[in-house]
Amino acid sequence: MSRIRAAIVGGSGYTGGELARLLLFHPEVEITQVASGSRAGQFLHSVHPNLRKLTGIRFCRPEDLMPCDVLFLCLPHGASAGMMEHYRTLAPRVIDLSADFRLRSSTLYQRWYGGEHPATHLLGEAVYGLPELHRAELSEATLVSGTGCMATASILGLAPLYRAGLVNEQMPLVVEAKIGSSAAGAAPGASSHHPDRSGAVRSFQPTGHRHSAELIQELGVLRGQPDGLTQSVAFSATAVELVRGILVTAHVFLNEQIDEKVLWRVYREAYGREPFIRIVKERSGVYRYPEPKILAGSNFCDIGFELDAAQRRVVVMAALDNLMKGAAGNAVQAMNCMFGLDETAGLLFPGLHPV
Amino acid sequence: MSRIRAAIVGGSGYTGGELARLLLFHPEVEITQVASGSRAGQFLHSVHPNLRKLTGIRFCRPEDLMPCDVLFLCLPHGASAGMMEHYRTLAPRVIDLSADFRLRSSTLYQRWYGGEHPATHLLGEAVYGLPELHRAELSEATLVSGTGCMATASILGLAPLYRAGLVNEQMPLVVEAKIGSSAAGAAPGASSHHPDRSGAVRSFQPTGHRHSAELIQELGVLRGQPDGLTQSVAFSATAVELVRGILVTAHVFLNEQIDEKVLWRVYREAYGREPFIRIVKERSGVYRYPEPKILAGSNFCDIGFELDAAQRRVVVMAALDNLMKGAAGNAVQAMNCMFGLDETAGLLFPGLHPV
Amino acid sequence: MSRIRAAIVGGSGYTGGELARLLLFHPEVEITQVASGSRAGQFLHSVHPNLRKLTGIRFCRPEDLMPCDVLFLCLPHGASAGMMEHYRTLAPRVIDLSADFRLRSSTLYQRWYGGEHPATHLLGEAVYGLPELHRAELSEATLVSGTGCMATASILGLAPLYRAGLVNEQMPLVVEAKIGSSAAGAAPGASSHHPDRSGAVRSFQPTGHRHSAELIQELGVLRGQPDGLTQSVAFSATAVELVRGILVTAHVFLNEQIDEKVLWRVYREAYGREPFIRIVKERSGVYRYPEPKILAGSNFCDIGFELDAAQRRVVVMAALDNLMKGAAGNAVQAMNCMFGLDETAGLLFPGLHPV
Amino acid sequence: MSRIRAAIVGGSGYTGGELARLLLFHPEVEITQVASGSRAGQFLHSVHPNLRKLTGIRFCRPEDLMPCDVLFLCLPHGASAGMMEHYRTLAPRVIDLSADFRLRSSTLYQRWYGGEHPATHLLGEAVYGLPELHRAELSEATLVSGTGCMATASILGLAPLYRAGLVNEQMPLVVEAKIGSSAAGAAPGASSHHPDRSGAVRSFQPTGHRHSAELIQELGVLRGQPDGLTQSVAFSATAVELVRGILVTAHVFLNEQIDEKVLWRVYREAYGREPFIRIVKERSGVYRYPEPKILAGSNFCDIGFELDAAQRRVVVMAALDNLMKGAAGNAVQAMNCMFGLDETAGLLFPGLHPV
Repeated sequence: MSRIRAAIVGGSGYTGGELARLLLFHPEVEITQVASGSRAGQFLHSVHPNLRKLTGIRFCRPEDLMPCDVLFLCLPHGASAGMMEHYRTLAPRVIDLSADFRLRSSTLYQRWYGGEHPATHLLGEAVYGLPELHRAELSEATLVSGTGCMATASILGLAPLYRAGLVNEQMPLVVEAKIGSSAAGAAPGASSHHPDRSGAVRSFQPTGHRHSAELIQELGVLRGQPDGLTQSVAFSATAVELVRGILVTAHVFLNEQIDEKVLWRVYREAYGREPFIRIVKERSGVYRYPEPKILAGSNFCDIGFELDAAQRRVVVMAALDNLMKGAAGNAVQAMNCMFGLDETAGLLFPGLHPV
Repeated sequence: MSRIRAAIVGGSGYTGGELARLLLFHPEVEITQVASGSRAGQFLHSVHPNLRKLTGIRFCRPEDLMPCDVLFLCLPHGASAGMMEHYRTLAPRVIDLSADFRLRSSTLYQRWYGGEHPATHLLGEAVYGLPELHRAELSEATLVSGTGCMATASILGLAPLYRAGLVNEQMPLVVEAKIGSSAAGAAPGASSHHPDRSGAVRSFQPTGHRHSAELIQELGVLRGQPDGLTQSVAFSATAVELVRGILVTAHVFLNEQIDEKVLWRVYREAYGREPFIRIVKERSGVYRYPEPKILAGSNFCDIGFELDAAQRRVVVMAALDNLMKGAAGNAVQAMNCMFGLDETAGLLFPGLHPV
Repeated sequence: MSRIRAAIVGGSGYTGGELARLLLFHPEVEITQVASGSRAGQFLHSVHPNLRKLTGIRFCRPEDLMPCDVLFLCLPHGASAGMMEHYRTLAPRVIDLSADFRLRSSTLYQRWYGGEHPATHLLGEAVYGLPELHRAELSEATLVSGTGCMATASILGLAPLYRAGLVNEQMPLVVEAKIGSSAAGAAPGASSHHPDRSGAVRSFQPTGHRHSAELIQELGVLRGQPDGLTQSVAFSATAVELVRGILVTAHVFLNEQIDEKVLWRVYREAYGREPFIRIVKERSGVYRYPEPKILAGSNFCDIGFELDAAQRRVVVMAALDNLMKGAAGNAVQAMNCMFGLDETAGLLFPGLHPV
Repeated sequence: MSRIRAAIVGGSGYTGGELARLLLFHPEVEITQVASGSRAGQFLHSVHPNLRKLTGIRFCRPEDLMPCDVLFLCLPHGASAGMMEHYRTLAPRVIDLSADFRLRSSTLYQRWYGGEHPATHLLGEAVYGLPELHRAELSEATLVSGTGCMATASILGLAPLYRAGLVNEQMPLVVEAKIGSSAAGAAPGASSHHPDRSGAVRSFQPTGHRHSAELIQELGVLRGQPDGLTQSVAFSATAVELVRGILVTAHVFLNEQIDEKVLWRVYREAYGREPFIRIVKERSGVYRYPEPKILAGSNFCDIGFELDAAQRRVVVMAALDNLMKGAAGNAVQAMNCMFGLDETAGLLFPGLHPV
């Protein structure tokens, strides 16, 4: 069988570079083109130095894109929605890693992103590209949305509790995300200047982070609330010293007294057969709970939990690499689903230790 | 007037070293002795290399301590309580930086530390050494307890809201603390091994952290609940890449709809005249909210807040240097109160930027 | 063809863990046993958390090792030499990653390691396991030595200049190595305690580092000086903030005035066809020269050079991951040579960017 | 006696901010104005957040500068030379922290900086502002130049050996500097973008660094070579993960066999009475040699050495904080000399440990 021809638009950013790295080594894929408005004509490795000696591809101009089997869009938020009809003429399957098609409801979009969505007629078609929740839909999908990196960790960490109906929705859901610098992208600026960013513990979005909307949508689905979770969701984000990685700490209040065995059962049933989810909860050692640093380059989402029975509270921790399971790796996993491939194809790197 | 003669017990640890550094440059203090069981006979600077060329003091044996005006105890938790009667014969004023005398209630102590307190008869005498809350008591105190580093940040950040009666105590208080490696002390071990600790985002205590007890006690006092806050307190702690510093992010739910002006007024009234508390809340720039890294070596606690009016929620952020305002610096400030000195004496270093 | 059966002795350390990770994903290898004196009975992933969900292997006791096709020794220096006869009864091919068999001359060994070598009769048999210099010998070898991590970077960086006879050996060779914390191993201690090691720029071995001996031996061979290079070799090592990685900066003085084209030709001829060596020397960008951080997990050694024509001096820079090309990765590459496999088998991970 | 009125031009950069911090707490100085072309009208603490609550000063426009007693210029290289006549009308004493007046010889300037010096007639007047070498001249000086941060560490580390005539000048002097990110200034850019700069070990200037010229000039003076040292000086610079700090490792070859006692004597004689130089050379412990990280905020230059007797080689290590002893701290020390004050005034902060 011939290889899947894949092209990337917006290939000079971090997500685009990560996708290129993954697809170069993917056993069933051939990269046909990587477009970049700003870097057209230059070698990929001039921007992504880890690809030196591994590929001779040069960036092409976006207007020179040719038809292919799957098109990955790694454009800034707001850039792809208006052009989506055009992109869909180029490929029968499109995966958009921006935020433009994450929310199915134009109301929810408007509330969190401001302004009218530029292509509301496509919202219903787009599938939220999280295989663990939407595997069946992905196998049929022609338009798939990437997922927010912090949203992915939060949703994967919390989904089993919501699906099992354990959560007291009268109480708030509090999610605190710690995140590395690569999530802010490849463009330098004051907030990424090393003397200021190094060693920072910076509350950059204590309230109102847009990834909240994805939690509200996806956890709502699990609760049969199609207009979004009605529970109060308090999401805050803090930048920490790390390039790649996210740790989400979520405080969930339960509607009944349970013991830890119930939690183990709920998580094992949800994730026992998932190739990229590991339950991490050990009695001893330094890595008792999910730790993002050992996930750099891997597609795992590690999930742990701790019960505070007296307070009917569970603390859920979920870790991932924001450029992998939080972006490019997850997109490749979604692509594997869309094409009926082994879901782990091209995604086997396990992460390093120590690192 | 002659200088205050101060001695330190347990001077080879991080808190002891920081105290020594502060007292060496304190205009009203003379260090008479620094005791260390393990380092007796060695120069201070052999353990604290920043003190090279600044002092010729050597550690003495604990049993060789002589009378002085104020004795600082920097011993492991549990070590000072049983010996306190002895230490009080050496000095009319004792400041114990361990956790042994932080809790006034032996019940609360037993619940959080396990086992009977070894000197319950002294619990009533000890003052929780946070000048911003107990200034008047400190001026009379002979036995003062240091404060927990994460507790200090949390309590200072939250006190104005509790004192003003703004908090909905039917809802949980969720506090997530991010903390540097020096808080775990000077003894090497698996959890501080650099290849593992570097770049870590490690949930080391998702539930049940002992510093919770200090919040329960001190916020309870502010609410007229002498047995401790009855509200549910969900405190979790995450180690991040940083040597010195804490950032606490607290989610508080309010019992009425308020606007931001109310919060400004409440915080300004509480802290407008405090020398070591700064309200940090700016519209632009990289340092819009408290950032622990620029506090290294300073005694400031920086506090910020952001209102989520729709959810009747405030996110409070508080940052400090765990060895300064979270330990030794705060102890010197307390000492200044006890001796009627200018509270800022010896504590003027403003912190560095960039760093 | 059946898979190569490989076993690891000393599998709980960093090199052993890295080897296990590589061999688990090696297409031609099956790990039969991983021995550890201290961890026997425990799961591999209890020590190497990146291997969770990837293998169910447990550590066995060293005395329970069974015959296999190739045995990797990851023991502390001095531990394998005395036991080598025993290990060779277990496998027809042994790769010893300790320093015990790096030096062919017992005199050189004695000068740099002190004391008599415990198995001098085997020194002649052992091949210095650097494929770029000893590929032909490796294909016949039954006893192969791993290479020192800083020595590997230095030798690979300098070999082309020495082989070409460009170096003025009347002048000193000055090599300054910058190195991450994982090179000091998995055992915690005062020098790896995070509050002290974090952000350090520590001259831990300004003179007399044992890796010098490998330079003297290997560069000597290239100059036809079988007793070792007669030139003065000044090697110093500085620990920097990094977990994995080495950058070596070498100052070489030339015996004639040359221009940069000569250098390009010499390096291209030496390494143009090497799968794991990249010449990195660009006119612009942030990654103009070798940078170890983007090599974490990869088996590349990146090499760059800059000519100071006026001073007849070349500065050579070489970067690698000390656990990969500096240890386990290079050992797998050597194994591939020994078994006549594609040299890149199991070693294709390209490294991450950003990271 | 009234306070010295000091003003700063170029106060929004890192050196300007550090100077402001030091002068705010200097017992004999009053800051009258801080000028900034880009920030005029804004509060100092909007740019230097560590100065919050410590000063209400706002930046003024450079054209609004008033006469004062001493004017500090913290402008980019090349900006002050052409304006120097103007600045000297504003203050009887000017300290220029740029590189414009570091070199006394216009030939040397032209060779290293390219182009004609814009004010050659002033070169003879300017004093190289290193108190340890030019204390007497400083007490008379009206125009003083700041010193290059890496040059300062190198010169202070090497001066005793050169002055004592121990160096074999037929052999090269090799100096390798490791340096933190703050040395590149406050302007963000690709090379300071956190995901790329974090954890970097980057050879940014393997040959030809301009600080070489200062070594050539100042070590030349000590050898009676007024046109500059004739020895070959090989200086290379590597950026490492650190915000503040420099470690210089210098390899010096000696013209005779000496023992370590000679070195101790030479260094003790040179620096025994210097307030800001410490000889750091210990037999045990983690801080056996100079370590820049514990110098952050301090004005110390720590110097160590190790003799390789067999090779007649000394490795000299020198560490300092590039913004303190490498820039602003040293400038204040020079100012203290110029005004006949205690040289340590305003410079007593000892640095932190751990940090």
